[in-house]
Amino acid sequence: MDVIYLLDLFGTFVFAISGIRMASRTDMDIFGASVVGFVTAIGGGTVRDLLLDSHPITWMADMNYPIVILAAVPFTFLMGKKLNNYSKTLFLFDTIGIALFTIIGMEKALSFGLNPFMAGMMGMISAVVGGITRDVLCREVPLIFRKEIYATACLAGAVVFYLGIEIDLPDNLNYLLTTGVIIGIRTVSIRWNLALPKMKRV
Amino acid sequence: MDVIYLLDLFGTFVFAISGIRMASRTDMDIFGASVVGFVTAIGGGTVRDLLLDSHPITWMADMNYPIVILAAVPFTFLMGKKLNNYSKTLFLFDTIGIALFTIIGMEKALSFGLNPFMAGMMGMISAVVGGITRDVLCREVPLIFRKEIYATACLAGAVVFYLGIEIDLPDNLNYLLTTGVIIGIRTVSIRWNLALPKMKRV
Amino acid sequence: MDVIYLLDLFGTFVFAISGIRMASRTDMDIFGASVVGFVTAIGGGTVRDLLLDSHPITWMADMNYPIVILAAVPFTFLMGKKLNNYSKTLFLFDTIGIALFTIIGMEKALSFGLNPFMAGMMGMISAVVGGITRDVLCREVPLIFRKEIYATACLAGAVVFYLGIEIDLPDNLNYLLTTGVIIGIRTVSIRWNLALPKMKRV
Repeated sequence: MDVIYLLDLFGTFVFAISGIRMASRTDMDIFGASVVGFVTAIGGGTVRDLLLDSHPITWMADMNYPIVILAAVPFTFLMGKKLNNYSKTLFLFDTIGIALFTIIGMEKALSFGLNPFMAGMMGMISAVVGGITRDVLCREVPLIFRKEIYATACLAGAVVFYLGIEIDLPDNLNYLLTTGVIIGIRTVSIRWNLALPKMKRV
Repeated sequence: MDVIYLLDLFGTFVFAISGIRMASRTDMDIFGASVVGFVTAIGGGTVRDLLLDSHPITWMADMNYPIVILAAVPFTFLMGKKLNNYSKTLFLFDTIGIALFTIIGMEKALSFGLNPFMAGMMGMISAVVGGITRDVLCREVPLIFRKEIYATACLAGAVVFYLGIEIDLPDNLNYLLTTGVIIGIRTVSIRWNLALPKMKRV
Repeated sequence: MDVIYLLDLFGTFVFAISGIRMASRTDMDIFGASVVGFVTAIGGGTVRDLLLDSHPITWMADMNYPIVILAAVPFTFLMGKKLNNYSKTLFLFDTIGIALFTIIGMEKALSFGLNPFMAGMMGMISAVVGGITRDVLCREVPLIFRKEIYATACLAGAVVFYLGIEIDLPDNLNYLLTTGVIIGIRTVSIRWNLALPKMKRV
């Protein structure tokens, strides 16, 4: 469980970095970049908690989240272009973040008595809303709507995780398996440049 | 009441189609189009429920809403350009959707003890927030802010509906009358190309 | 306390005007401009109340807020270009609005038992979310992310306000001091054209 928590913080950190980096490519100052980093990192969990009526909102009750996010600002600033050398590492942790946000969102929703379908939706919302908000604030058509098997990986992970619960897989094993599936799908889709078909114009 | 519920589902379906179609004109993949369809269909009701602190959120407690929305994706995809032949039908159901979302939102707000003005606002929020979110995600200045007597029709419907309650009109008749007024105003405004005056630059 | 309430309403009025004016520079009709004015004025307080799970949402329980906002629409329309002659007055009241929204947001958060850091965040959210939403609806990269010491002034005000509470400063004096600090920082930064450094591209 402690490992999960640490990885969740790490995912939060990496999500914040992704927000700060995208903001830095628009005309934003440091404050703006910090806000975008913050929203990217906590947006998904916040919307999930509001929809579930779960209070206090996770990051409002645990200072570690804001601390980790604020730490991402000087970190990103100091690392600068050097971050490009670590794009594979960032990608890995970003994917772990997505996987964990999906799993944690699903667990929370199931504990609130939602059915598996709704729990899967809450998991996906936890994983994708932050990135969507980031893109809207930076005036991009949300990346997740255009490229990558990002959300499909989430969805597959959600299915695997639920099946794991149904067949009474030990929690840790289930976490590992779900995360593995999500990392696997994302890695394969990037390597072979797979993408969902475009929606034809109608 | 059953008729209201069925029409509400139908309105949800038509709203989802409008989201999917607009998404298809940007560079989105099928997942992105589905998300935009979803948000268009449930955005208004979700914001209304959050503002009223009404939990569970309507669509989270009734699988029929997600099912109808997910059904809209293959439907829109398969119909494709043929949908253009049904633009009058789509327009009619879209307007019925707006009318019903306004009425249902108002009734809910009144049952939560809000005054008629606030109830009218909740009705309008139910009807318009989905479309606004759709347009933001697709990077359009929200259509409703630029063209059509869309929201004015809502507003007129809200007034009629409230007066109907005040003079103890039977519910079904009030629904019918309100919907008729909204359909009437929208149809007339489209036919004679009426629009609100532009806001002058200040 | 009555003075605070009146100034809060005045800040709401001025925020609404800023929304309506920005909307008038896009292609919006009067309805669209009204909605943007509304969201600019109540967006920050609404998100704060949702995050704190504080119901009813402030403006939903006090008709004075909607009335003041709706009054801003004909006021802005009638004043038109003449408003440019009052840009210093508008700026002053806008800044007073920011200061009050920060203070009121912090007080509310502290009364909900949040720690000073989180209360400061809630204060800033109260002050800045409306403007950010306004800019997203008008398809601008949020102004606050690009220019001005706007949020920095908020942040400094939040620190001063909290220290004032800690040293048991009388409430009224603390309000005055905090507002003074925020007005001072904003005025100085505008006069000498100070801005936060841009985030470098990473």
